[in-house]
Amino acid sequence: MNKLIYGVAYYPEYEHENRIDKDFEMMQKADINTIRIAESTWSTWEPLEGEYDFSILLKTLDKANEYDLNVIVGTPTYAVPAWLVKKDPDVLATTENGRGLYGPRQIMDITNMTYLEACENIIRKMMEAVQDYECIIGFQIDNETKHYGTAGKNVQDMFKTYLINKFKTVENLNNLFGFRYWSNSIATWDDLPDVLGTINGSYAAEFELFQRQLAANFLLWQRHIIDEYRRDNQFVTHNFDFFWKKDALAPFGHSFGVQPGINHLEASKATTLLGCDIYHPTQDDLTGAEIAYDGDSIRSLRNEQYLVLETQAQAFRYWTPYPGQLKQQALSHLASGALGVEYWHWHSIHNSFETYWKGLLSHDMEENAVYREACEVGEIFKNISHHILGAYKRNDVALIVDNRSQTALKYFPVGDKEDEPDAQYLSYNDITRAYYDALYEQNIECDILDVEALKDSTLDYKMIVTPALYVATEETISILRRFVEEGGVLLSSFKSFFVDENVQVRQAKQPYNLTDVFGMYYQQFTRPGKTKLCGEPVDVWAELLIPDKDTDYVMYEHKYWGNYAGITRNKYKKGSAIYIGCWCAKKVLKDEIRNAAEIANIRIESNQFPIVIRNMTGKDGNVLHFIFNYSENENIVICSYNSAIDILTGKSYSAGDNIIMSDWGTVILMERLEIA
Amino acid sequence: MNKLIYGVAYYPEYEHENRIDKDFEMMQKADINTIRIAESTWSTWEPLEGEYDFSILLKTLDKANEYDLNVIVGTPTYAVPAWLVKKDPDVLATTENGRGLYGPRQIMDITNMTYLEACENIIRKMMEAVQDYECIIGFQIDNETKHYGTAGKNVQDMFKTYLINKFKTVENLNNLFGFRYWSNSIATWDDLPDVLGTINGSYAAEFELFQRQLAANFLLWQRHIIDEYRRDNQFVTHNFDFFWKKDALAPFGHSFGVQPGINHLEASKATTLLGCDIYHPTQDDLTGAEIAYDGDSIRSLRNEQYLVLETQAQAFRYWTPYPGQLKQQALSHLASGALGVEYWHWHSIHNSFETYWKGLLSHDMEENAVYREACEVGEIFKNISHHILGAYKRNDVALIVDNRSQTALKYFPVGDKEDEPDAQYLSYNDITRAYYDALYEQNIECDILDVEALKDSTLDYKMIVTPALYVATEETISILRRFVEEGGVLLSSFKSFFVDENVQVRQAKQPYNLTDVFGMYYQQFTRPGKTKLCGEPVDVWAELLIPDKDTDYVMYEHKYWGNYAGITRNKYKKGSAIYIGCWCAKKVLKDEIRNAAEIANIRIESNQFPIVIRNMTGKDGNVLHFIFNYSENENIVICSYNSAIDILTGKSYSAGDNIIMSDWGTVILMERLEIA
Amino acid sequence: MNKLIYGVAYYPEYEHENRIDKDFEMMQKADINTIRIAESTWSTWEPLEGEYDFSILLKTLDKANEYDLNVIVGTPTYAVPAWLVKKDPDVLATTENGRGLYGPRQIMDITNMTYLEACENIIRKMMEAVQDYECIIGFQIDNETKHYGTAGKNVQDMFKTYLINKFKTVENLNNLFGFRYWSNSIATWDDLPDVLGTINGSYAAEFELFQRQLAANFLLWQRHIIDEYRRDNQFVTHNFDFFWKKDALAPFGHSFGVQPGINHLEASKATTLLGCDIYHPTQDDLTGAEIAYDGDSIRSLRNEQYLVLETQAQAFRYWTPYPGQLKQQALSHLASGALGVEYWHWHSIHNSFETYWKGLLSHDMEENAVYREACEVGEIFKNISHHILGAYKRNDVALIVDNRSQTALKYFPVGDKEDEPDAQYLSYNDITRAYYDALYEQNIECDILDVEALKDSTLDYKMIVTPALYVATEETISILRRFVEEGGVLLSSFKSFFVDENVQVRQAKQPYNLTDVFGMYYQQFTRPGKTKLCGEPVDVWAELLIPDKDTDYVMYEHKYWGNYAGITRNKYKKGSAIYIGCWCAKKVLKDEIRNAAEIANIRIESNQFPIVIRNMTGKDGNVLHFIFNYSENENIVICSYNSAIDILTGKSYSAGDNIIMSDWGTVILMERLEIA
Repeated sequence: MNKLIYGVAYYPEYEHENRIDKDFEMMQKADINTIRIAESTWSTWEPLEGEYDFSILLKTLDKANEYDLNVIVGTPTYAVPAWLVKKDPDVLATTENGRGLYGPRQIMDITNMTYLEACENIIRKMMEAVQDYECIIGFQIDNETKHYGTAGKNVQDMFKTYLINKFKTVENLNNLFGFRYWSNSIATWDDLPDVLGTINGSYAAEFELFQRQLAANFLLWQRHIIDEYRRDNQFVTHNFDFFWKKDALAPFGHSFGVQPGINHLEASKATTLLGCDIYHPTQDDLTGAEIAYDGDSIRSLRNEQYLVLETQAQAFRYWTPYPGQLKQQALSHLASGALGVEYWHWHSIHNSFETYWKGLLSHDMEENAVYREACEVGEIFKNISHHILGAYKRNDVALIVDNRSQTALKYFPVGDKEDEPDAQYLSYNDITRAYYDALYEQNIECDILDVEALKDSTLDYKMIVTPALYVATEETISILRRFVEEGGVLLSSFKSFFVDENVQVRQAKQPYNLTDVFGMYYQQFTRPGKTKLCGEPVDVWAELLIPDKDTDYVMYEHKYWGNYAGITRNKYKKGSAIYIGCWCAKKVLKDEIRNAAEIANIRIESNQFPIVIRNMTGKDGNVLHFIFNYSENENIVICSYNSAIDILTGKSYSAGDNIIMSDWGTVILMERLEIA
Repeated sequence: MNKLIYGVAYYPEYEHENRIDKDFEMMQKADINTIRIAESTWSTWEPLEGEYDFSILLKTLDKANEYDLNVIVGTPTYAVPAWLVKKDPDVLATTENGRGLYGPRQIMDITNMTYLEACENIIRKMMEAVQDYECIIGFQIDNETKHYGTAGKNVQDMFKTYLINKFKTVENLNNLFGFRYWSNSIATWDDLPDVLGTINGSYAAEFELFQRQLAANFLLWQRHIIDEYRRDNQFVTHNFDFFWKKDALAPFGHSFGVQPGINHLEASKATTLLGCDIYHPTQDDLTGAEIAYDGDSIRSLRNEQYLVLETQAQAFRYWTPYPGQLKQQALSHLASGALGVEYWHWHSIHNSFETYWKGLLSHDMEENAVYREACEVGEIFKNISHHILGAYKRNDVALIVDNRSQTALKYFPVGDKEDEPDAQYLSYNDITRAYYDALYEQNIECDILDVEALKDSTLDYKMIVTPALYVATEETISILRRFVEEGGVLLSSFKSFFVDENVQVRQAKQPYNLTDVFGMYYQQFTRPGKTKLCGEPVDVWAELLIPDKDTDYVMYEHKYWGNYAGITRNKYKKGSAIYIGCWCAKKVLKDEIRNAAEIANIRIESNQFPIVIRNMTGKDGNVLHFIFNYSENENIVICSYNSAIDILTGKSYSAGDNIIMSDWGTVILMERLEIA
Repeated sequence: MNKLIYGVAYYPEYEHENRIDKDFEMMQKADINTIRIAESTWSTWEPLEGEYDFSILLKTLDKANEYDLNVIVGTPTYAVPAWLVKKDPDVLATTENGRGLYGPRQIMDITNMTYLEACENIIRKMMEAVQDYECIIGFQIDNETKHYGTAGKNVQDMFKTYLINKFKTVENLNNLFGFRYWSNSIATWDDLPDVLGTINGSYAAEFELFQRQLAANFLLWQRHIIDEYRRDNQFVTHNFDFFWKKDALAPFGHSFGVQPGINHLEASKATTLLGCDIYHPTQDDLTGAEIAYDGDSIRSLRNEQYLVLETQAQAFRYWTPYPGQLKQQALSHLASGALGVEYWHWHSIHNSFETYWKGLLSHDMEENAVYREACEVGEIFKNISHHILGAYKRNDVALIVDNRSQTALKYFPVGDKEDEPDAQYLSYNDITRAYYDALYEQNIECDILDVEALKDSTLDYKMIVTPALYVATEETISILRRFVEEGGVLLSSFKSFFVDENVQVRQAKQPYNLTDVFGMYYQQFTRPGKTKLCGEPVDVWAELLIPDKDTDYVMYEHKYWGNYAGITRNKYKKGSAIYIGCWCAKKVLKDEIRNAAEIANIRIESNQFPIVIRNMTGKDGNVLHFIFNYSENENIVICSYNSAIDILTGKSYSAGDNIIMSDWGTVILMERLEIA
C-alpha cells in the first residue's frame, strides 16, 4: 500500500441503469481510490447451477482500470442463490429455532457438503475470470462469517467425534461436565443427547467453542483456494464484525464488543491483511468509543494496521451525521491504526431490506451534504497518507478478552434475568466495555488481547486488565501470577478466575489460585441492594471480599455487608494486584483504574473525554497525537508538547498554547523531534 | 328501508333454555326492530357432513315474523365445524406461524377447495330453507373477512401464476423487486422462493396485495351464490372491520384504522348495502373519533348510508358505559351517515371465550341500567327516522388512505423497532389517524378515500390530505399535480410519494415529481433528537427540507438541523401545496391543518373538541347539525344558526342563543330553511 | 420422630472427590441429623437399561449408619436418563409447545408406558437394594410432581374416555361447555377437537382438571410400589411445591401461591408424612409471608405437622442471608407447624445449571458464615425439639383456595392483558395472597382449606374467607349459606361464585344464590378508572354493588359509579356476610378484614407486621407464642402474657414487660399455665 485506502462498497448489480461512468466520476471527485465488490452476488454470477455470467463483474473491473480505482473482490458465499437451497434444503442451517426459510443471508450450514462444493466451484470460476486484472489489490473471503448457530445432525455428529477425541471416555465427560446432575450422565457415546436441549452449561459452552472453530476453519479453507490464484502483492482479508448490540442508541444495532460467533484471533490466521466493519452511534451519541474499541481489537490481533472494510456514511435516520462528524469519524479510525476506511456503501439501495441503511449517496444518486463532506475527507487522506501509513502503537496496558468467558457467562449470567433470557443484562460485553471505556475516557490507551494470545506474549506491558475473565486455565493463572511477580500491575474485576476451561467452578477459595496475589479471598457474593462503595451505589453483583492483614481495601457501606471489602489492592512481590469485587459506579471504576495506572507508572493525560487523545509513531519515527473533541461545544486543549504541528492545517503549537477544538473537531499534532 | 334500523346480534343457539318469547318481548319494549343471526352457526345447522338441522333458525324466523322483527341472516362460513377440519386438515390456513389448530374462528385457508365446496353447500342449503321468509330484509355474507395470512403451498402456487401474468419475465421481477440484493435473484420461475422467508419488502408487499385480493374474491363468490336466491328488496351486506389496536385504552383491542387484511373498496363491490363493525373506547375515553373515522371510511366507499352491524352495548369492564353514553354513541353513528345501529350482542354469553364481551343484557338476562338506556335510544330512533333516512354529506376535504402504503410501511417502518417487530411504533395507522383526528377535533369534516378511488373521482374537493402516502404511482402523482394546478389545496405528510407501486424507492429528489408543486426538495432525513418545531418537540422522524426561494417555510430549531425546514407552504399555479416533513406535536399539526383549510376557503367552526359538530343534509333538503359534548362536564355552545330546532327535544334556538350541553349530551339542530 | 429433623439434600454423586467422611463430620458439627438423597440419580443407578450400579447409594447409607445420620431416600423418577428417551422419544411430553428436547428434568409424559415401566423397574431395584438399612426413616416419592402440560395423543385419548364417562352425550357437552359458540359443537365423540387449539374456557379448564388428576394418580401409583417394601416405621412423603412466581424480588422465582399443576389435597393421599419445599425472598425482602402461607397450606391438608424438605441456605445472590436470617427462617418454619427443616442443599455444585443455587457450603466446600449460623440453628433445634414435636394449631379463620377457580381465571383473567397472556396481571394467586397477607400482617392466623375440604369440614371456624372463589358448585354455596345461618362470618371477594363447575356463568343475579346472604346484588362491573373507595384508589376491577335496604355498605367515590357500593356488610340469620366488590387498596382490605374478624369475635393482636406472632399448643398443653421481628431495626414488643419464658434464652417475662426484639430476631414465649 502506498497510500491510505479510501473506498466504498459498490454494487453495480443493484443499479437499474448504466451509471458506472457517472459513479466513478463522482468517486474520483471525492478522491475515493478503492471499491469493494462482489461479496453478495452469487445469484448474479451463477443464475443457474453451472451457468455463469460475470459480465457485470468484468465490466466493473475494466472500468475500474480505466478510472484508476483499486478493487477488492469478495467471494460471493455469504448469501446463497435460491437454486442451491432448492437443490438441497439442508444448505440452510438447523439451529435452536429449527431450519430457516430461504431469504436472509448468513443462515447456511457452513459444513454442508452441497454448500461447500458449490462454494468452491463459484470461487474458482470467479477467480479464473478475474485473476489477470491489475486493479485488484486484494480479496475478501466471505463476509462477517460466524457459525450461525448451525447444529443439525451432521454438525452434532462431528461434535461427538470431537468430544471423543478430546475427552476419550464418557466417564471423563460425566466428571468434567458434571453430567450426573439431573440424571444427564451417559454410559455410551451413543447416548450423548441433542445439545440443543441441554441444560448443562459445560456441554453447551463446549459446543459453542466447537462451532467457533467450524467458522474459523471455513475461512481457512477459502483462503487456501484463493491462494491458488492470487498474486503475491494481492492481500487476503476478511470483514470481521463485532457483537451487535440493539439498544436505544440504535434500534437496528451497532458494533459493541467481543463477537461470540467466531474467534477473531483464531480466524485471523486466514488473512494477510486484517479487516473489519465498525458501525457506531453518531449525532449526539458520537463518542469514538466503538471506533477505538473495535480498532484496538483488530489491530492487536497482530499489532498491525488494518482496513475498515465497512463503516457508515449516512446509514439510519439516527446516524445521519452532523456537519463535521464524517470527517472526525474517518480520522478516528486512523488514530486506532487503520490504513484506510471504506463506506458501506456507495449509494442507498431502492428495494429489498437495507433500503434505509443509506450510502454516501441518497436514493436520488446525486451530490448531497454528506457526499460533499466525503470529498473533504478524500482530500485530507491524500495529504496525510505518508504520515499514517506504517505508523504503529506501543501501549503500556493490555485488556484481556475471552470468548469462553463470554459464552460461560451467557449460561451463567451475572444479572440473572432468567425470565428474559435475551436481555443479557450486564453481559460479558457490558462489563468488558465498561472497563475499556473507563480507560478510553481517561486517555489511557490499551491493546486488546485474546486470552489465548497471553501464551506467547512477551508480556512487556506495565498493566494487565481482566474484566470478567470468568474462565481461566491453570496456565493463564500462572502467566498472570508471573506477571505480577515480575513487577506488573494486574487489575481484575469480579467474576474473574471462577471456573476452569470446562466451565467447572473451582473447588477452592476465590479468586482461584490468586488469593495470595490479591491478598484476599471470598466465599460469598450477593445482590448489593442498598450497598454503596465510595459513596456511590453498587448494582447487580457484589463479592464479599475478606482482605488479608496487610492488604489495602475499600469496605462496602451497608449495615451487614459493611464487614466486607468491595475493592482490594495488594503489593505482591515486585508488582501489584487490584481487585474490584462488584459492579460499581462508573466514577469509582474510573478512579480505581486511574489509580492502578499511576501505580504502574503510566503517563496520564490531564485531558479527559470529550477530549480524546490517541497516539502513534510514524514509520519515520515522528510521534503523532490525534486530538478529538467529541462534543457539539467548542473546547480548548492546552498543548503539552514542546513543539508540534497540526498536519491537517499546518498550524504550529508550543507547550502551553491554546488549541481551540471546534465542535466535532480533530487536530493531529506531529511532534517535532528535538534532534531529528 | 323506511325506518332506522335498531337491532342486536342474536344467538338463540347459545341459549340454555327456551327464551325466545321473553327475548323478543324485551326487544319490542326497547323498540328494537331488527335481529342479525346465524353467522357462526355452521356446526349447529350441519352437525355432521350432509346432515342438516335448521330447526333453531326456522323457529327464530317464525317468531320474528310473529313479533314483527326484521331479520338479517348471515352465511355461517367464518367459523368451521370440527368435522370439516377432520376431513381435510388443510382447511386451516398455513401462515407464517405454521398451520393453526382447530378452535378459533377465521383461521381458514379461504382458497381451500374442501372449504369452498362445503361453504357453497351450506349456503345453498340454508338459503333454500329461508328464502321464503318475508321478515328477512337482507343477508350478510361471511363476517369480518380477511385473508388470515393464508400462505400454504396452494396459495403460493397461485401467487406464482399471478406474478407470471403480471411481470412476465424473471428478469423484470429481479429488476423491479431488486432481487439481486443478497443473491435473491432467480433465473427460472421454479426458483421463486417461499415468500414466508423473504427479506425482500417488494416481494412481501406484493404477496399481501395478492392476499387481499383473495379475500375480496371470496366475498364476491359468496355474493353470486346469494344472488341466486335473494329477492330484489333484500340487501347483501358485509361486516367490514378495521385495524384492531390493542393499547392501554383497550387491552383486548378496538377499531382503529385501515384494515390491512382486505381492501374495503375492492371488497365492497360484493355488497348492495355497506356495513361494518365499530368498537371504540368509552367511559373517560369516549371521544367519538373512532365512530367518526370508521363511519366516514365506510360511507365514503360509495357516498352512501351504511349499517353499523356491530357495536358495543356493555362489552368489557373498561367499556361499561356511563349514563348517557349509550345514547350519545348511537346518535354519533347517525351523524356519520349510519342508517342504523345493531348491538353486539343481545345478551352476554355464559361459556367459551367472549364471555366478558357483554351484551345489552348481563349474564342474568334481566333488565339492567344499560338495557333501560337502550329503550330510550329505541324511542329516539323511532321519532327521528324520517329526518335521518336518506340524509347525505358533501364534504370539502378528502383524506387519502392506501393499503399498499400501509403494507410497505410495515416492512419499512418509520419508527424502527426492529427488535420489536410487532410494536408498530408510529405505524401507518398511527399517522393516518393523527391527521384524521386533527381534522375531527377542529370540526373539519372529511371523506376518506382509498387512493384507488382518486382515479375516477371528480375531485371537486377543496382540500386533499395525504398522510404517509408512501406508495404513489405516476398516475396518483399526476392527479394530485392536476388538483393543485386547478386550484386545490394539497396537504401531505412526511414519507409520502417515496416509492412506486413495487415498493421501489424513486431514484430522484423527493417528494418525487412534486418538488415544484411543494416548492422544496429533500435528500436526507434524521431522527430528530433535540429538534423542535414551532417550539414543540419533534419525534421519530424529520425530513431535512430545502425550500425553494419563494416558498414559505418553518425552520427546525436545532444546532445543525436548524438549517433545514420542517414545514413548507407553496403556491403553485391556482392552488397551494403544504408539506409537513416530520412527526410534529399535535398542536403544530392541528394549527397547520387549520391554516391549510383556511387557505382552501373552508368554513371553520369556532367550537372544538370536546364539542364536536357534524352536519348532514336530509333528503328533504333540511340541514342537520349534530352537536356532541364528549365530556363529563357540562358545556355551553353558542348557536350560530339563524333559526334551528333540536329534533330530540323540540326546543328552538336562534343565533347567539346558549345551547346547554349536558355531560355526554347530544343536540341535533335542524336549520329552518329561510325559504323552504 | 423423636426429635426435630434438621437436614440437607445431599448429592455425593455430584462430587469430584471422595468427601463423604469430611461432609458427614461437618454435618455432625452442625447438629444436622438427616440427609435426603437420590431423587435425581437415575442415570447413575441405571447407566444403561437393565444395568445397575448402586455403589454410591449403598456407600452413603453405610456411612450414614456410621455417622448416625437419618436418611430419606427419594425415587429417582423426576429426571430420566438419556437412554430412556433414545429408546422411546414419546417419554418426553407433548405440550402446547410441542415435544421437548432431552435435557431438563420434569418434562416427561407421566402416562407414557415406556416411562412407567422403567420407573417401576428402577424403583423396585432400588428398594430391594436399600430395604434393610436401619438409617432410612422414610421415602420420598418422585419430586415436585406436576402434570408438566402433557397433552399428547395418548393423553387426549384418555381425556376423551374421561369426558364420555363424565358427560355421557355430546349434546350434554355442547350444552354445558357452550360448544355451539363459534361453531365448535360436535355430533360424535370422534369430532372432539384437539384441546390444545381450543378457545373454549370450559373445555380447557376441564382438561387441566384431568391433567391434575393424572399427576395425583402417578404419585399414588408410586406409593403402592413403595408400600410393598417399606417398614411400618418408615414414612412416605412428597416434596410439594407451590406456584413459582418470577418477579423483581426473585428473577429466578420463588414460592408464591396455589400450585396449578397438581392438586395438593388430592395428591397428599399418597403420603403418610406431609412435605414441601419453600423458597422465599430474603435480605431486605424477608417478611416470613411465604414461609407462613406455604406452611399453613401444607399443614391444613391434614392438620398435621409437616416436613420442609427443601428451603434455601444461601441460594441466589439476592438471597444470601443477612446475619441472623438463617436462624429466623428456620424458626419461622417451626411456627407454621414444621417438624423439621432441610436445606437445599449441602454444598453448591460446580457445573451444569443450578450452579448459582448455592448450598450451605459455597463452592470451596469449606466453613463459611452461613454454615456457622447453621451450626447455631442445629444447636437450637436440639434444645427445643421436645417443645415443638407434636404441637398443633387451632385457628378461628379458614381461607379457601381452589385449583378450579385458579384455572378458570387463567382463561378469564380479571385484569385482561390479552396481549401479554403470560403476564397474569392480578392472577388468582395475586388475589389469594393479598387476602392471606392482610390476615398475616395483622397476626390473624388461619388455616388454608382446599374448597373440596369444605365438604367434610366440621366448619367450627368463626370466619371463612373466600378470595376469588370464581368457581362454586351448588354444594359449596349451600355449605357457605349454612355457615352464615349458623353464626359464622363469611368474607368474600369480588369474582366469587360467578361460574359453576363447568365454568359456565350462572344465569342469575350475582353473587349467585347468595344475594340474600350478602344483602345485595350486582349486574355490572367496570374498570375503576378514577374510582376511589374509602379515599383510596381502586384498581383493575370494580363490581357495581346494589345493597338491599338494610345492608351496611361503603359507596364508591366517582361521578357515576358513586351510585353503587364497593363493600357491603350484612347480618344474615345468626351470622354476617361481608363482600368486597373490588381490588381495593391494601389498607382498605386490611381494615375490612380486621373489622370482619372483630365481628367474628376473634382476638386481635395489637402488634402488627413487621412484628409477627404465631401460636401453637404443645402436645404437653403448653402454649407457645413465636414472636418475630422481620426488620433490620430493633423493635420492642410489650408482653401480653401473665408469665412466660423464652425457650431460646430462658429469659422470663411478665405482662407489660418490654421484649426487646433484635434485628431479624425471634423470641419463643412459652406461657406458664396458671394451673398446670
